[in-house]
Amino acid sequence: MGEFDLIERFFKRPPLRADVGIGDDCAVWSPRAGHQLAFSADMLVEGRHFLSTVEPARLGHKALAVNLSDLAACGATPQAFLLSLSLPRADESWLSGFSQGLFQLADAHGCELIGGDTTQGPLNIAITVMGELPQGQSILRSGAQAGDDLYVSGHLGDARLALEAFRGAISLPQAVFDAARLRMEMPSPRVALGIALRGIAHAMADISDGLLGDLGHILKASHVGAEIELPSTSALMQTTHHWSCPPDLAQTCVLSGGDDYELVFCAPPLASASVHAAAQASGTRVTRIGRITAEPALVLLDAQGQVVHSRFRSFDHFA
Amino acid sequence: MGEFDLIERFFKRPPLRADVGIGDDCAVWSPRAGHQLAFSADMLVEGRHFLSTVEPARLGHKALAVNLSDLAACGATPQAFLLSLSLPRADESWLSGFSQGLFQLADAHGCELIGGDTTQGPLNIAITVMGELPQGQSILRSGAQAGDDLYVSGHLGDARLALEAFRGAISLPQAVFDAARLRMEMPSPRVALGIALRGIAHAMADISDGLLGDLGHILKASHVGAEIELPSTSALMQTTHHWSCPPDLAQTCVLSGGDDYELVFCAPPLASASVHAAAQASGTRVTRIGRITAEPALVLLDAQGQVVHSRFRSFDHFA
Repeated sequence: MGEFDLIERFFKRPPLRADVGIGDDCAVWSPRAGHQLAFSADMLVEGRHFLSTVEPARLGHKALAVNLSDLAACGATPQAFLLSLSLPRADESWLSGFSQGLFQLADAHGCELIGGDTTQGPLNIAITVMGELPQGQSILRSGAQAGDDLYVSGHLGDARLALEAFRGAISLPQAVFDAARLRMEMPSPRVALGIALRGIAHAMADISDGLLGDLGHILKASHVGAEIELPSTSALMQTTHHWSCPPDLAQTCVLSGGDDYELVFCAPPLASASVHAAAQASGTRVTRIGRITAEPALVLLDAQGQVVHSRFRSFDHFA
Repeated sequence: MGEFDLIERFFKRPPLRADVGIGDDCAVWSPRAGHQLAFSADMLVEGRHFLSTVEPARLGHKALAVNLSDLAACGATPQAFLLSLSLPRADESWLSGFSQGLFQLADAHGCELIGGDTTQGPLNIAITVMGELPQGQSILRSGAQAGDDLYVSGHLGDARLALEAFRGAISLPQAVFDAARLRMEMPSPRVALGIALRGIAHAMADISDGLLGDLGHILKASHVGAEIELPSTSALMQTTHHWSCPPDLAQTCVLSGGDDYELVFCAPPLASASVHAAAQASGTRVTRIGRITAEPALVLLDAQGQVVHSRFRSFDHFA
C-alpha cells in the first residue's frame, strides 16, 4: 500500500464544509463573517503520550480529543483539522482502527479532516485543529479576577491512576483499572461546556499537565493567585467511587495527575447560577474548588481553612 | 531548560496580526472579509527528509519552506503557521540555529508563528501553514485543459544530485556539491510566482516528489495527459552549468529527483506573455517544457518528437 492509497483508503472523505479538502496542495476554507478562528496544535509521541499497547481506535480518539480540548478551553466550536502522521509501516489493521476512532470523535463534533501529511518514521501523530468563535468571545487565560469562583469540569486524576498501575507502582482491582484506563485512553473533550461558558467564564484553560500546573498558567497570565479548598477536590476522581484509594495517592492524582483533558475556569460569584446552567445544558459535571485571590500565590486549604504546604508540581516535557 | 522556557526563549514573539498568539490554549485569528484561507501541513522526519548532519538553521528554513511551497502551489499569500516539534533533548545551540533559520524565512514572507507544541521524542518537525486567497482565486490541480502549455519554475534535480553524493553513489567537485547541497537544504518556495499566477495558471502543483509524479497529480485531477519535450528540460539543473553531469543521471534528477520545491503549472498559449510577465515580476525563472493533451497519458518526447519509453517513477513514502 503506497502513501496515496493509504490516504485514499483510510482518510479521504468528501469535503463537508471545506471548499477544497484532501487531495490538492492546500485545503481551501471560507471563514464565516463575524467570526474569529481559534487554532491549536498537539503532537503525540509513542512511549511519552501513549503506550505502544493502546488500541489504535482509542489512540485515534485521543489524538483528536487532546486538540479539541484546547478549542474547548477557548470556547471555540470545532470546524476542521489537519493530521500529520509518521508511521513505522503502513499497517492496514492499525490504520483501520486508528482512522475509525479518529473519525468517530471528529463526526461527533462536526470537525472535518481537511488535510495533512503521511510519512514513514517513528510513530508520531501531529494534529492542528481549527475552531470558530463569535467575534470577541474567546475565553483566555488572562481574564481571571480576584474574587472569582474557581471550577473544574468532570473528573480528575483517573488517567494518572491508570498510569501508576501501568508502571507497576500500584495494583488495582480489574474494574477500577479498566475504568481508569478508559479515562486515560479516551478522554472526553469538554467542547459543549466550553461553548456554553462563553460570556460567563472570565478565564479558562484545559487540564493536560495537571490541575495545579494548568491553573498556574491562568494565575500567571491574569496576575492573580488562587485558594483551592482541598475537601472540595476529594470526590473528583471517578474511580474512587468504586475503590478506596489511599488519600495521598488520590491527592497526587487529582492535583497534579495530568492527561485529564478537563477544564479549569473561573467566573464571578454572581454568575454561579449561569455556570450551573451551562453545566446542565452541556451535560457536564462542574465542581467549585476554591476562588481567585489578589495575592499572586497558589494556596491549598484544608477542612479548617488552614494552608497546606504543597508538595506538588505539574508535568513538563523537558524538566 | 523546561518546555515553557524553551518556547519563551526560542519561539515566542509578540503577536503581529494574530489577536492571540503563543501562550494560550489556542491562537485566535480574525480572517479578512472577501478572502478564503488555504491550509497545508508537512512533517519532516530525521533520516527521511533530512540528514542528521544538516545545520539547524538550514533545517529551520527547510521545514517552513516545504510548507510555504504548498501555499505557493495554490497561489496563496502566507499568513501564519503552527509548529509542533519533537526533540530528543532541549539542546540550546540547536534550538537557537533552528529558530533563527525558521524565523528568517518566516519574516521574509510575513508569516507569523501563532502556536504549536513541543515534546520529547525522536526528532520530528510538523508544521501547519495558513495562507490567504482572494475569494475564488485558488489555483488547483484540477483545472488543466488540453492545449495548455506546461511550465516549471526555477531549477530541478539539484537536490537529488546532492542526495546521490551524500549516498556515495557519485562523486562531485566540491563547488558543485556545495551548490547542490544548498538547493537540497535551503529550497526557495516560489510564493511570489504563485501569487503572480493567480488568474493566469489553469492548474498548479509544487514539485516535492519529482516532476513526473507531481505533474501526474495534475493530470489525474484534471483528467488529461501531457507531453514533455525532453530537450527543453536539459538545462533545468542549476549545477550542470558548472559541471558535466552524465546525461542519464541528469535526466533522472530532473524528471524524478524530488525535494525540488519548484512549481509545475499550465496556462493557455494565449497567456504566454502573462506567464513571462509573472515570472519577471516575481524574479523567478520559468521554463516551458511541453503541453497538456486530451489523451490521459504522460509522454516524453525526444528532439525528433518521438516518444521515449519512461523508466521513471516518483517518490512514495510507503512504496
